[in-house]
Amino acid sequence: MALMYHSMDAVDETPSFQAKSFFDSAPVLKDADSISNKITQFIHQNSLPGSEGPRRVVCVTSGGTTVPLEQRCVRYIDNFSSGHRGATSTEYFLKSGYSVIFLYRRGTFQPYCRSLPDDPLLECFKLTNDSSIQVVESHAEAVKSAISGHHDAVSRGYLLKLPFITIFEYLQILRLIATSMKILGPNAMFYLAAAVSDFYVPWESMAVHKIQSASGPLDMRLAQAPKMLSVLRKEWAPTAFCVSFKLETDTGILLEKAATALKKYKMHVVVANELSTRKEVVILVTESGKVSVHRENDQSDVESPLIKLLVEKHSTYIMDVNA
Amino acid sequence: MALMYHSMDAVDETPSFQAKSFFDSAPVLKDADSISNKITQFIHQNSLPGSEGPRRVVCVTSGGTTVPLEQRCVRYIDNFSSGHRGATSTEYFLKSGYSVIFLYRRGTFQPYCRSLPDDPLLECFKLTNDSSIQVVESHAEAVKSAISGHHDAVSRGYLLKLPFITIFEYLQILRLIATSMKILGPNAMFYLAAAVSDFYVPWESMAVHKIQSASGPLDMRLAQAPKMLSVLRKEWAPTAFCVSFKLETDTGILLEKAATALKKYKMHVVVANELSTRKEVVILVTESGKVSVHRENDQSDVESPLIKLLVEKHSTYIMDVNA
Repeated sequence: MALMYHSMDAVDETPSFQAKSFFDSAPVLKDADSISNKITQFIHQNSLPGSEGPRRVVCVTSGGTTVPLEQRCVRYIDNFSSGHRGATSTEYFLKSGYSVIFLYRRGTFQPYCRSLPDDPLLECFKLTNDSSIQVVESHAEAVKSAISGHHDAVSRGYLLKLPFITIFEYLQILRLIATSMKILGPNAMFYLAAAVSDFYVPWESMAVHKIQSASGPLDMRLAQAPKMLSVLRKEWAPTAFCVSFKLETDTGILLEKAATALKKYKMHVVVANELSTRKEVVILVTESGKVSVHRENDQSDVESPLIKLLVEKHSTYIMDVNA
Repeated sequence: MALMYHSMDAVDETPSFQAKSFFDSAPVLKDADSISNKITQFIHQNSLPGSEGPRRVVCVTSGGTTVPLEQRCVRYIDNFSSGHRGATSTEYFLKSGYSVIFLYRRGTFQPYCRSLPDDPLLECFKLTNDSSIQVVESHAEAVKSAISGHHDAVSRGYLLKLPFITIFEYLQILRLIATSMKILGPNAMFYLAAAVSDFYVPWESMAVHKIQSASGPLDMRLAQAPKMLSVLRKEWAPTAFCVSFKLETDTGILLEKAATALKKYKMHVVVANELSTRKEVVILVTESGKVSVHRENDQSDVESPLIKLLVEKHSTYIMDVNA
């Protein structure tokens, strides 16, 4: 019989302290300089005054983080997250005139690519008799939209995509992004749709080699992952507009948890959703109350009204800060 | 501090009993009839006498299985496995005249698609000035090979691809495949390269809802996953030629574990490999001893000599059985 229970040993540490311990003991981020340069350049380009004023920049996080269980990683804990919310939202933010830094889990949905089959290359293309590559007619529109939408956004400098896999990479890159975005003041937004691990194994406590299975049931103790939202709000980007997500499978506790997150981490908006209805309806929880947002019909995206509402709230926020 | 340890509570149950418990309590396999029909048809087509005799059929398993931690699955344990071994081996089996049932983890490498970038659609294609889709010249060869190789194999009825995600789906579909392949006698081979979970949470013991993280460190107890290799060998396809894999990160225990697996599960061959050198060298462990197999050079695949050797051993096996 497998069972899970909470130990009562939790020591109270400040978020700052937890964050510091986390980063101090995490494995070194690969290609950190290259990632840092891409971010800095992107933000610079997007902070130059344009004909309509500086572009707002939103950091959209998307997909689940993994928690390695062994240093020479064979096994890991993962969070189910297709990235559909993050990818779709990115399209609507771009449509609303925002530039987007898309921090996504490798292998999850990409902006503009949602209407494609599972294996786009093998299912959308074929070889003609004279060995040239041709798109399968029924997929032609979707393929063209994907390639043009994506290409436009990237080539105009409106979309920067940064992949991650582990919780270490995710938080290290998020920290790089957030500290770079500080310079944008209230024009910066964080849209934190990624499914971040609540529990993890600190790198130093991790088994070095693959854990052996011969000896019977396996017991594991996982530490609570540090709550970086507080640190993002207080230290990394203190004037940015912050939107976090709360996903639950039990509607009974959903709103209570969203309200707690809003207060505890000082988020400006918490988007609450229940796993089975997340594509149909979300609830925006703010200091002023709750708003249910529904998709217009079965064929449309709930992200359309959702992003519209968030853009309005962000505008109000910017005006209030600049007043 | 996170730590992992083994409990001493394991009860000795026969593989058959463990298997029965597992299947009895697993969630129902989605589209089981459709999958079953595809398998039956494929095997039927491949057991018809051809000009060169009946085609041998190999079931290649590839990629990692997931272990859901909650019934309304948000979190799960996963096994790192790109599927490179399984996909590459499938190409070489097809080249050797075998038909292949490719049981793979969704999202992992596909046969013929290994030389493609991470996001083949967005990286290999562009739109021309007149809005038609064109392949990027530097990727043209790789794209053509992928599409033609794959299309050929599928359209000639030599390649059947079946995806899985969870350990439940994997073992349920493997059982369908194996019991259907029984009819092929010794012409059937199993090439079990998938990274199957050693530990899991039985469906009935699983938390229904998302486990809450507010209360401190999380302790988990996982049950040992049933060893299906024994059941496959004894009950599902008792005359098939069986090859299993052993991957370790510690060379010190690798060969010992491979030899144990060979004996315990009565495999015909165990392919032993160490995580960091698995693309360069593998060790075939059989009753007669051990053979190291190296790739010819840095640009070639170790699967080339590996599959060649296995095909020879399979031929010997078929002759012995038919004698």
